[in-house]
Amino acid sequence: MFRNNYDNDSVTFSPQGRIFQVEYAQEAVKQGSVVVGIVSKTHAVLAALKRNAEELSSYQKKIIEIDTHYGIALAGLASDARVLSNFMKQQSLASRLTYDRPMQLADITARIGDRAQINTQQYGKRPYGVGLLIAGVDATGPHLFEFQPSGVTQEMVACGIGARSQMARTYLERNLEQFEGSNREELIRHALRALKESLSQDKELTVDNTSLGVVGTGDAKERFRLFEGTEIQSWLETTFENQGSTQEGEGMDVDK
Amino acid sequence: MFRNNYDNDSVTFSPQGRIFQVEYAQEAVKQGSVVVGIVSKTHAVLAALKRNAEELSSYQKKIIEIDTHYGIALAGLASDARVLSNFMKQQSLASRLTYDRPMQLADITARIGDRAQINTQQYGKRPYGVGLLIAGVDATGPHLFEFQPSGVTQEMVACGIGARSQMARTYLERNLEQFEGSNREELIRHALRALKESLSQDKELTVDNTSLGVVGTGDAKERFRLFEGTEIQSWLETTFENQGSTQEGEGMDVDK
Amino acid sequence: MFRNNYDNDSVTFSPQGRIFQVEYAQEAVKQGSVVVGIVSKTHAVLAALKRNAEELSSYQKKIIEIDTHYGIALAGLASDARVLSNFMKQQSLASRLTYDRPMQLADITARIGDRAQINTQQYGKRPYGVGLLIAGVDATGPHLFEFQPSGVTQEMVACGIGARSQMARTYLERNLEQFEGSNREELIRHALRALKESLSQDKELTVDNTSLGVVGTGDAKERFRLFEGTEIQSWLETTFENQGSTQEGEGMDVDK
Amino acid sequence: MFRNNYDNDSVTFSPQGRIFQVEYAQEAVKQGSVVVGIVSKTHAVLAALKRNAEELSSYQKKIIEIDTHYGIALAGLASDARVLSNFMKQQSLASRLTYDRPMQLADITARIGDRAQINTQQYGKRPYGVGLLIAGVDATGPHLFEFQPSGVTQEMVACGIGARSQMARTYLERNLEQFEGSNREELIRHALRALKESLSQDKELTVDNTSLGVVGTGDAKERFRLFEGTEIQSWLETTFENQGSTQEGEGMDVDK
Amino acid sequence: MFRNNYDNDSVTFSPQGRIFQVEYAQEAVKQGSVVVGIVSKTHAVLAALKRNAEELSSYQKKIIEIDTHYGIALAGLASDARVLSNFMKQQSLASRLTYDRPMQLADITARIGDRAQINTQQYGKRPYGVGLLIAGVDATGPHLFEFQPSGVTQEMVACGIGARSQMARTYLERNLEQFEGSNREELIRHALRALKESLSQDKELTVDNTSLGVVGTGDAKERFRLFEGTEIQSWLETTFENQGSTQEGEGMDVDK
Amino acid sequence: MFRNNYDNDSVTFSPQGRIFQVEYAQEAVKQGSVVVGIVSKTHAVLAALKRNAEELSSYQKKIIEIDTHYGIALAGLASDARVLSNFMKQQSLASRLTYDRPMQLADITARIGDRAQINTQQYGKRPYGVGLLIAGVDATGPHLFEFQPSGVTQEMVACGIGARSQMARTYLERNLEQFEGSNREELIRHALRALKESLSQDKELTVDNTSLGVVGTGDAKERFRLFEGTEIQSWLETTFENQGSTQEGEGMDVDK
Amino acid sequence: MFRNNYDNDSVTFSPQGRIFQVEYAQEAVKQGSVVVGIVSKTHAVLAALKRNAEELSSYQKKIIEIDTHYGIALAGLASDARVLSNFMKQQSLASRLTYDRPMQLADITARIGDRAQINTQQYGKRPYGVGLLIAGVDATGPHLFEFQPSGVTQEMVACGIGARSQMARTYLERNLEQFEGSNREELIRHALRALKESLSQDKELTVDNTSLGVVGTGDAKERFRLFEGTEIQSWLETTFENQGSTQEGEGMDVDK
Repeated sequence: MFRNNYDNDSVTFSPQGRIFQVEYAQEAVKQGSVVVGIVSKTHAVLAALKRNAEELSSYQKKIIEIDTHYGIALAGLASDARVLSNFMKQQSLASRLTYDRPMQLADITARIGDRAQINTQQYGKRPYGVGLLIAGVDATGPHLFEFQPSGVTQEMVACGIGARSQMARTYLERNLEQFEGSNREELIRHALRALKESLSQDKELTVDNTSLGVVGTGDAKERFRLFEGTEIQSWLETTFENQGSTQEGEGMDVDK
Repeated sequence: MFRNNYDNDSVTFSPQGRIFQVEYAQEAVKQGSVVVGIVSKTHAVLAALKRNAEELSSYQKKIIEIDTHYGIALAGLASDARVLSNFMKQQSLASRLTYDRPMQLADITARIGDRAQINTQQYGKRPYGVGLLIAGVDATGPHLFEFQPSGVTQEMVACGIGARSQMARTYLERNLEQFEGSNREELIRHALRALKESLSQDKELTVDNTSLGVVGTGDAKERFRLFEGTEIQSWLETTFENQGSTQEGEGMDVDK
Repeated sequence: MFRNNYDNDSVTFSPQGRIFQVEYAQEAVKQGSVVVGIVSKTHAVLAALKRNAEELSSYQKKIIEIDTHYGIALAGLASDARVLSNFMKQQSLASRLTYDRPMQLADITARIGDRAQINTQQYGKRPYGVGLLIAGVDATGPHLFEFQPSGVTQEMVACGIGARSQMARTYLERNLEQFEGSNREELIRHALRALKESLSQDKELTVDNTSLGVVGTGDAKERFRLFEGTEIQSWLETTFENQGSTQEGEGMDVDK
Repeated sequence: MFRNNYDNDSVTFSPQGRIFQVEYAQEAVKQGSVVVGIVSKTHAVLAALKRNAEELSSYQKKIIEIDTHYGIALAGLASDARVLSNFMKQQSLASRLTYDRPMQLADITARIGDRAQINTQQYGKRPYGVGLLIAGVDATGPHLFEFQPSGVTQEMVACGIGARSQMARTYLERNLEQFEGSNREELIRHALRALKESLSQDKELTVDNTSLGVVGTGDAKERFRLFEGTEIQSWLETTFENQGSTQEGEGMDVDK
Repeated sequence: MFRNNYDNDSVTFSPQGRIFQVEYAQEAVKQGSVVVGIVSKTHAVLAALKRNAEELSSYQKKIIEIDTHYGIALAGLASDARVLSNFMKQQSLASRLTYDRPMQLADITARIGDRAQINTQQYGKRPYGVGLLIAGVDATGPHLFEFQPSGVTQEMVACGIGARSQMARTYLERNLEQFEGSNREELIRHALRALKESLSQDKELTVDNTSLGVVGTGDAKERFRLFEGTEIQSWLETTFENQGSTQEGEGMDVDK
Repeated sequence: MFRNNYDNDSVTFSPQGRIFQVEYAQEAVKQGSVVVGIVSKTHAVLAALKRNAEELSSYQKKIIEIDTHYGIALAGLASDARVLSNFMKQQSLASRLTYDRPMQLADITARIGDRAQINTQQYGKRPYGVGLLIAGVDATGPHLFEFQPSGVTQEMVACGIGARSQMARTYLERNLEQFEGSNREELIRHALRALKESLSQDKELTVDNTSLGVVGTGDAKERFRLFEGTEIQSWLETTFENQGSTQEGEGMDVDK
Repeated sequence: MFRNNYDNDSVTFSPQGRIFQVEYAQEAVKQGSVVVGIVSKTHAVLAALKRNAEELSSYQKKIIEIDTHYGIALAGLASDARVLSNFMKQQSLASRLTYDRPMQLADITARIGDRAQINTQQYGKRPYGVGLLIAGVDATGPHLFEFQPSGVTQEMVACGIGARSQMARTYLERNLEQFEGSNREELIRHALRALKESLSQDKELTVDNTSLGVVGTGDAKERFRLFEGTEIQSWLETTFENQGSTQEGEGMDVDK
């Protein structure tokens, strides 16, 4: 019977140079419900499928506002995500208090990456079991970053992580060229469509199980805002009943 | 013979991204006697089945007042629960002394979640072997939260944890729509009925083995109070003999 | 051959949520000679069977005065008990010096419980291998608490721990109703009778192998005192020769 | 083949509640040569069999003066005994310097017991592999204490530890009643006779292999003194040639 | 079945004096995409093949500017490389702030070597799983250094590390004599050709998957600069369509 | 096949109360070349057989002067001996600087014993793998002590440790009575003869492989001095060619 | 199949008193290319065979100047050697700054020996995997020391360590008598000839693969200097073409 001698902790390389515990932590991300992110020239959008483990619980919190200019979507261990989001909130607040400016997105992403790397190189710790999409707008425009348990972070045009996220990614790859030029409404609809691809056959996106995070730049500067429940009703309708529609005029008010 | 190589400590992921020691700690919760919580627009209620390991002992303490505005019900390792409740009392007292305001329930819940998460990511510790229901009223109204050994916390409409709690949850799910609008007496009766569902066939709820925690808001602002013994006599009678009765006038005095 | 993979240390849960090392520590309590405690409305009494490992040694110290208002009886590892009793003495002394008041019994019991809990959640320690009965009188009246290696503590009406203590408990359960109203002499006789139940057939309680701890409240306020040797002669006689006698006038002087 | 899974370290309980490493440390005591102690109303006496591992070495130091009012006899690991005796000397000196009074014997015994207990409850340490008899005189009269690797300490009337010490103990038990009233010379002879019982058939007590420690109270206040070599000649003669003789007038001078 | 007993951690030598975990870390370098470095009398050049794990991600960052006078190319674990490059940036900045001079390349290379060595001699750490090429110009002219997970660093004339890098090295060895005298354009073309050798048959170097780092000395002093995308178009064309051409006049502007 | 479960570290007792790692360290002493020490009423002498692992190396340093009044001879791990001798030098220097007096030999011996004992009672250390003979003269006259890896130290009349040292010890035991009254020259010759006994048949003591350490008291107060090479020529000659000669007048000058 | 239970770490003795991990570290020395050292009355010389792992790399640095009066040659793990040489440089600089004098060679050698010893007596570290030859001139004349992973250091007349060094040592032993009286040129030629002995049949010493370190005393006081490349051309020629020639007049200039 096969016995892997190299997967006991995150400070042991396999003979092939792999660190299995880091790879297993990546599996924890795949247990989380799917989240999707897309960035255009003017906006960054997060969309998430919320699970409720049982009817009695409120739905999981999948998208979290960190600062007025960005938020995160998570897939994996919720308590690990809370630790990381608390850290991001503290860092972002410190940046505003100390330097009087919002944290750069590439910067905060690198910091959680560094923090995560330590857990992959020290005995007695374990890698974080959560993946994050960081979406926001800073001095250099809208950005989308992916954070992985390995501490690897990379900027993305669009991304999907979590259970069955391969289907979301396939949608995103097929429509990759359209994102940069998409306006706010188009971007949201792309995110919702990508999210829907990852649902199993018999499931639908509803006002209960879907949440959106939107942030924008340009003239209509829009701070990061989480949309849930009835707020997303009309997007769900326009996206899945009039697919391809680009009539933004029918869109909804935006919190500026 | 099956040998699980990944369940020795809480800093090791299985190849499927699971942390077995955290899951085993969850089993300790299932060894505890059942506790139930429900929240309405105006009240939050906890109900607990008290065991006495032997006749000579007093009954277990299953519901603990933490501050005047909230309390907890526990299932699992009692000494772990004491450590956590002491921590909550200190934090709540510090909030009152430092900021002159009661602790927000979402806040204190997150703090014990963070504390528990550390024990799941550091070698040489073990996860807490206890689950908690946190019920109370704060500036944002009545709330019910569930705390799990993994450090995951979530707001609930109603919840049951501990031995045979699945039956209590089934009752709660069937009656989910009624809770929000229930008045104090109705809510207590729902909690007692849910609790009774989890008893084995030959057991009854009695003034000895049942305890209740009630806290309210609105006009009749009611601080958290624990009811035990003869205090709950009439509730047990009205609940199980005149099921469905909503004659609140027959209720009992409330400590305001 | 069965091999338990989960009983190596106290920071590992079994798949059923048990911590075996804590349970094994409980077995150490069962190796100790039996001790019994009972509480009435006015008095708390401890009775202990003292072993002498060999003829040459003095008898074991089974009952220890901690402060003028309470004492403990122990079963299990004597050196662990000494560590805990030293801690209790320091805490009690500090309470008197700092606040000028005797330590509440529920309070000191919780403190040793917390201290013991740490040893069940940290690698490299082991649980205390001793059980304690804490008996005394404080501002809220007479109390009896049981302390277990798990850190669990509970208030008891009557309790027996140590070797063959099940027999003592059976006696206590049969007479449970009588304790609350018993006077000092009756309570002592109940304690002695319960203790005797746990002796093997061919053994007798004697002035050499028996010790008593008594503390009282009310008009005849009686500080905690240990009775041994000839001091307990008449109790042994009245208890086992005139069973049922309640002639207190024949009792012995009490140190007030 | 039997494999004990619970005897690897001193922080693991066996399923029966035993700590095997502590029991194994007790075996180290049994490897040491025998030492005996007896206490009367007026004196405390230690007697020891000194081994010389090889002819070239001086004989082992088995009895050590700690302070003017007490000394110890040891059986087991000599280097562990040195650590403990250094600790006792420091504590005793500190007592004299700080409080201007000799250390109480019960007190110093409890301190080494506490120190030893720590080594039985912390991973990475091992229990001391030595047993001690502490004999001396303090404000409360003459005392004899036994210290064991477990940290257990107990006051004794008489005691023998080390190799074949069971035979010495049998002698002591047979003569137990005589000790309390024995005078200095009688007590010494009892100690020598008990010691001799533990020798193998073909061995004799000689001025080379025997050492005595004597301390007394009362009118003839005698500080702790070690007797070796020709100093013990006449005791050996009177003890083993005129057994039963009680002619003290023939005794030897005493260092007061 | 073969079982290696000496490859569990980096503080264990095999009987042949090897440290397997360090060798396994070297395997992680071979999992990274290939990077190449060459140094001439006047310039140092880095060339890297960028992978994009999926279409949605931006390409990996394979070349990083550390200071104005040097940069690195990496192969292996990206998060380990980030930790090391952060350290290099801090050290280089400190050198400029404290001593007002750029860090010597041999010096900074030795420092990361020392840092890496520690991880190979301390239990509970793991070696860095990344190899680096450090290329730059300092007071002593252009330099190229290789850093390995073992902490070994060596100055190189030319070097290739990462997947299939043996092919790049074969090219470099065949053309070794030409490098010292090559001008900037020739050196870049050598680097690109070496890089191409390591591509699998069906792959091509493109403006998307190729990046270059160039730094120079002499009259045309050129600070370290990263070239990507359309900036490298003409180099790709002149290298692979007019192989052997040395018409520098057709080269591209250089950021001075 | 026999598998010893108790010999992995020095903090584990075997069921027989043995600490195998300490015993194994004693084996390291037996790997060292033999050293011999003898003490008389007026002198202490050390004699050592020096090995040269290969022809190219200088001979091992087997005798080391620690202070003007004493030196040590070592058998076992040379680097462990250096650590201990450095410690002894520091302690001895401190004694002279602080108290203006030479260190007592019993005192310095106890200190290294205590230091060694710690390594036998703490996980993660190992016992010193070296034995020492400490020879010198202090206020109480000449002394010879043996230090063992266990931390045990004992005063000796004569002693031999290291490879084949049993033969040296047999010689010493046969001549034990003569040592006390021997003069300087006789003592040296005894030491050389004992040393020779431990050589294999075909080996001789030579000016190259022999070293002597001598220290004396009395009228001809002689500080500790190491004799090697031609200095010991005449002793070798008088010892092995005129065995039994006691013509001291022919001895050699002494450094006073 | 043989399984060594005692070679897991450097704090475990085998039953024969060996520390296998230290011996395995010695094997790492044997993996390094050969280095040779010889000392005469006036000079100390190091000679080293440099490997280049691949054609592209510069040759390994085998001889390192530590201070103006001495240098080292290394065989084994290069990164371990760098740590030790950095330490030696710091110590030597400190000696000059603090005491205004060059470090004694015996002193600096003992310090790295002590540092290495620690790694053989502490769990979680590993021995250094490198051997060093330390050659230089101090107030007491020219010296050559060997440092081993065990922490053992010894002064040598001549020495060879590293791969196939046995052959160099055989040459050195055969010519041992000539070294003390050799002049500078003769000593260098001896070192080169010894080095050549360790080459495999088909290899030659060249200006590329050979390096020399020379330091001298006396009238022509010569600071430590490393000779490489064309600088050693004429020595190679005179050594291997005119073997036995002693025409120093043909030698090369010396940096004084």
